[in-house]
Amino acid sequence: MAFRPLHDRVLVRRVESEEKTRGGIIIPDTAKEKPQEGEIVAIGSGAKNEKGEITPLDVKAGDRVLFGKWSGTEVKVDGEDLLIMKESDILGIIG
Amino acid sequence: MAFRPLHDRVLVRRVESEEKTRGGIIIPDTAKEKPQEGEIVAIGSGAKNEKGEITPLDVKAGDRVLFGKWSGTEVKVDGEDLLIMKESDILGIIG
Amino acid sequence: MAFRPLHDRVLVRRVESEEKTRGGIIIPDTAKEKPQEGEIVAIGSGAKNEKGEITPLDVKAGDRVLFGKWSGTEVKVDGEDLLIMKESDILGIIG
Amino acid sequence: MAFRPLHDRVLVRRVESEEKTRGGIIIPDTAKEKPQEGEIVAIGSGAKNEKGEITPLDVKAGDRVLFGKWSGTEVKVDGEDLLIMKESDILGIIG
Amino acid sequence: MAFRPLHDRVLVRRVESEEKTRGGIIIPDTAKEKPQEGEIVAIGSGAKNEKGEITPLDVKAGDRVLFGKWSGTEVKVDGEDLLIMKESDILGIIG
Amino acid sequence: MAFRPLHDRVLVRRVESEEKTRGGIIIPDTAKEKPQEGEIVAIGSGAKNEKGEITPLDVKAGDRVLFGKWSGTEVKVDGEDLLIMKESDILGIIG
Amino acid sequence: MAFRPLHDRVLVRRVESEEKTRGGIIIPDTAKEKPQEGEIVAIGSGAKNEKGEITPLDVKAGDRVLFGKWSGTEVKVDGEDLLIMKESDILGIIG
Repeated sequence: MAFRPLHDRVLVRRVESEEKTRGGIIIPDTAKEKPQEGEIVAIGSGAKNEKGEITPLDVKAGDRVLFGKWSGTEVKVDGEDLLIMKESDILGIIG
Repeated sequence: MAFRPLHDRVLVRRVESEEKTRGGIIIPDTAKEKPQEGEIVAIGSGAKNEKGEITPLDVKAGDRVLFGKWSGTEVKVDGEDLLIMKESDILGIIG
Repeated sequence: MAFRPLHDRVLVRRVESEEKTRGGIIIPDTAKEKPQEGEIVAIGSGAKNEKGEITPLDVKAGDRVLFGKWSGTEVKVDGEDLLIMKESDILGIIG
Repeated sequence: MAFRPLHDRVLVRRVESEEKTRGGIIIPDTAKEKPQEGEIVAIGSGAKNEKGEITPLDVKAGDRVLFGKWSGTEVKVDGEDLLIMKESDILGIIG
Repeated sequence: MAFRPLHDRVLVRRVESEEKTRGGIIIPDTAKEKPQEGEIVAIGSGAKNEKGEITPLDVKAGDRVLFGKWSGTEVKVDGEDLLIMKESDILGIIG
Repeated sequence: MAFRPLHDRVLVRRVESEEKTRGGIIIPDTAKEKPQEGEIVAIGSGAKNEKGEITPLDVKAGDRVLFGKWSGTEVKVDGEDLLIMKESDILGIIG
Repeated sequence: MAFRPLHDRVLVRRVESEEKTRGGIIIPDTAKEKPQEGEIVAIGSGAKNEKGEITPLDVKAGDRVLFGKWSGTEVKVDGEDLLIMKESDILGIIG
């Protein structure tokens, strides 16, 4: 099953950052407030303004990104837990 | 009875996703917060801006879509329970 | 007494839908939250933007429409209870 | 004393509608929430947008109008209790 | 000391209206909610939009105006208690 | 250490007005709500709109201004307590 | 690991100001509300408006800036605690 986000939305797969998993250290609760890392799985065709003009997004499938902990809506696609969020929820691109 | 949504509204028929119904497993309450799947039944003529210009919608009748659990207004058309929502409530298109 | 709604407002006469009245079944309270059916009695000249440009409305007198239960302001015109609402409160057109 | 409302404001004299006064029937409290009838006494020069362009109003002195019960600010002009409100508070024109 | 209001602000001197003071009648508390009368002392150069374009104000020094009871910020200029408010707080011009 | 405010911000040094200090009269608490006097120390290059166009500010270094008591953010520059605020927080220019 | 902030966001490294650290004086809690000093580490390509036009930022990597205490989102890049914030959160540039 494919999923095409609408307009300026992107589909994101959460990635556990090395920072957090190396050595299996348990992250305390406060640390969980920090931005999370993810990989862009699919992107919408772009933001659409009042005139119907479309502005392509600046992230692309495969980009590693950071986004706020509370950003996005959880969605299950082909049995996998992913997130749908707006590009404006993306803080930046890693690498 | 036909129903034509106005402007950027769409008429949606809820679809129980396979994920949820296969095997008749009861979904716990928390799972109900997730986006829901539906099929577009009818669409409005498009979003209308301040100048009266119309921008056609990007979804069409027959599209399988995901939308937020709390999106839309319930409406009964020809005895069937459907939802009217704005295109902006649609998260993306499946398939 | 005639009544001309101003700008993007419309005058609506509530219509009890067949759904509800056939057989005189009493509708429980929860059902009352659903959209209601009405008939457009009169319409304003159109939405007026910041530049004074007018965009004609997309509904016309005689249209059967659905609107949210809490939409509009009740008004008595020639002894009849009607509703004044904005066109944007109209969910769609029936038939 | 004359009073010129500024911009898109209008000066309104409340009118007790026949509906209410004929026969001296006392209106119960709930009925008081309904729109009220009034007569336009004076109008501003028009709505002024960000560019300083003026759009003349669509109501004129002498118009009988309906407006929401809670619209406007009470003002006493030459000893008479009147209301100042924005044209957008006017629901429509009677007659 | 002169004071030049910035942009779309005006400097206003409160005026006790004749209505209120003639005969020394004490105004009950509820009456204090009504608009107040004032005289424009000085005006700003005009409203400035996003493009830096200036739209001159429609009131001028010397105008008698009505404004909402809670409008403006109290300021003492040369020992006199005056009010600074935006032109949009002015309801209309008297006389 | 120099400090250049960004965009439409200005750097302001509070000035105790003569009104308050002459004769050493103690100002009661309520009086503290009134606008305060200050001197512009530095200004930003101007307000920047959505198109990146810059509109120069209308105040300049050295201007004596009034601003609301709660306006601005306190900042220490070279050991001196100053305020950074937006030009729109400035009520007007004195003198 | 490099990190490219998206659009009008900037990556900032907190800097303890001399003011605070010289002599090792302990800053009381109230002082912590004041703006903080930082160094721009990386900047986004610019603010993007509704038409997709990009306006480059006015700060650049290496700039010493002041920003509000509560601005930005904490993020760990290559093991270093940094902040991502919007350029509009930057109060001004030092030096």
